[in-house]
Amino acid sequence: MKSVRDLLAEKGDFIWSVTPGATVFETLQLMAEKEIGAVLVVSGGKTLGIFTERHYAREVILKGKASKDTPVSEVMETQVVYVKPDQTIEDCMALMTDKRVRHLPVLDDGHVRGLLSIGDVVKATISEKQFMIEQLENYIATG
Amino acid sequence: MKSVRDLLAEKGDFIWSVTPGATVFETLQLMAEKEIGAVLVVSGGKTLGIFTERHYAREVILKGKASKDTPVSEVMETQVVYVKPDQTIEDCMALMTDKRVRHLPVLDDGHVRGLLSIGDVVKATISEKQFMIEQLENYIATG
Repeated sequence: MKSVRDLLAEKGDFIWSVTPGATVFETLQLMAEKEIGAVLVVSGGKTLGIFTERHYAREVILKGKASKDTPVSEVMETQVVYVKPDQTIEDCMALMTDKRVRHLPVLDDGHVRGLLSIGDVVKATISEKQFMIEQLENYIATG
Repeated sequence: MKSVRDLLAEKGDFIWSVTPGATVFETLQLMAEKEIGAVLVVSGGKTLGIFTERHYAREVILKGKASKDTPVSEVMETQVVYVKPDQTIEDCMALMTDKRVRHLPVLDDGHVRGLLSIGDVVKATISEKQFMIEQLENYIATG
């Protein structure tokens, strides 16, 4: 079973982030450009929250706010659910199901090392199954 | 391995949809009220497209449109990736990874029977693993 560390090594451990004063509009521009569904809100090396497509859909126009006038810090999620490098893909799945989140920042020694999406976790599960099938086929072919 | 049919039986096979003329704003209201991340756009029993939080984040304000003046049909995805009731949870995972989608409408005999999210699929994978572990524990306890 792959660990979060393995997954980050494959995916790359860079993180896209914005500062708390960035507007929601600027944040959406970054998310579109980088083709991502969530960004961390960071200030002075400290993670203050996370902003996702869901927060955009729920917390801006439906609350009477405008994306060009609203700082991301006003609508971000401040209760961030983290995962550690030694945890498994299954731990991530269980956390995502239990906490109903689709993104998990990876926290190592107080520093955020990366961000895993539910898509990353599903992709890793599929590739692991594929690997097991190939191993089995190999065993049958040579056994 | 659970099938799409099993999953729908657990989840319920109702579908939330809007008509093509609904505004993006009205569609977001429905999504927030029902706590869902995607809706089908349906007219006269025919599915014309799907609208998700991602489409909202990418296709409205970043394209200079306003959610209160834009019909959902203008920004929905018309290339809908479907799944059939007999397919497995693994098929869903593979499709979601391959096509980079997080929602799969279930098509049966030309009719949409439900809508599975990537969260549903991950949840089912976890509960299946849990079941296998319990079976194994039971086997050890009684074996």
